[in-house]
Amino acid sequence: MTAPSQSHVSMSGVPLDPKLEMNKQTVLAFYEAGLNDKDFDAASRLIGERYVQHNPLIADGLEGFKGFVTYIKETFPELRANVQRVFAEGDFVIAHVHGVRVPGQAGTAIVDIFKLEDGKIVEHWDVMQPVPDSAENQNGMF
Amino acid sequence: MTAPSQSHVSMSGVPLDPKLEMNKQTVLAFYEAGLNDKDFDAASRLIGERYVQHNPLIADGLEGFKGFVTYIKETFPELRANVQRVFAEGDFVIAHVHGVRVPGQAGTAIVDIFKLEDGKIVEHWDVMQPVPDSAENQNGMF
Repeated sequence: MTAPSQSHVSMSGVPLDPKLEMNKQTVLAFYEAGLNDKDFDAASRLIGERYVQHNPLIADGLEGFKGFVTYIKETFPELRANVQRVFAEGDFVIAHVHGVRVPGQAGTAIVDIFKLEDGKIVEHWDVMQPVPDSAENQNGMF
Repeated sequence: MTAPSQSHVSMSGVPLDPKLEMNKQTVLAFYEAGLNDKDFDAASRLIGERYVQHNPLIADGLEGFKGFVTYIKETFPELRANVQRVFAEGDFVIAHVHGVRVPGQAGTAIVDIFKLEDGKIVEHWDVMQPVPDSAENQNGMF
């Protein structure tokens, strides 16, 4: 994963609260383990006593996440999640991500929201939208 | 707009830096003016010297945003943007929003990311996904 340099400071350059910084690092490690390495066991160590899933295509809980990792490992072995920006406030980490299932494809714009408790991920929301081939502006989706 | 109660504190209940709090209030006012009231003039007063647009369906700049507000006012006069969660870090405000174009529809899950400078909005990214009628879990998208 391309760990964004801003993960060590807030997006304005101000050093973050250590808890916020640790939560960001946990989420970045979760992308690396769960999505890029597709290593469910490693990713599951970053999940707390529950994993409340809001992505409508994934079943609830740890077993649902295991099924998702198994699916992408078998179906899209080269899938990459490239974190473009990461933010933290309170118990939440928000990441703006470029997901590419197959190298060379335009991929998907994603925002994931994670809730953490005691340094572990316990809840996940996301929104996903395909990156279009053309757009009304030249700024890109990221 | 249903202003979320957490707009006055961080998502963990800790009082926010006054700048972060002010940026959140600016963004909440922008939803109210631009999307719920569909009042371009009011919304434009919250935009800075530039408005860099990353939504691929909207033209760049203030004129592009004006065209968007005109479009929704004419086409979806009852459109509502209901902010479910709002976060802030550094120069950025991130909002998790339930957009409903026509009352009664399932609507759209949206995350908007705004960059602010000197208290005004200068850049916007978003990701949008239709809320499905059924899902693999019972947790909803919000």
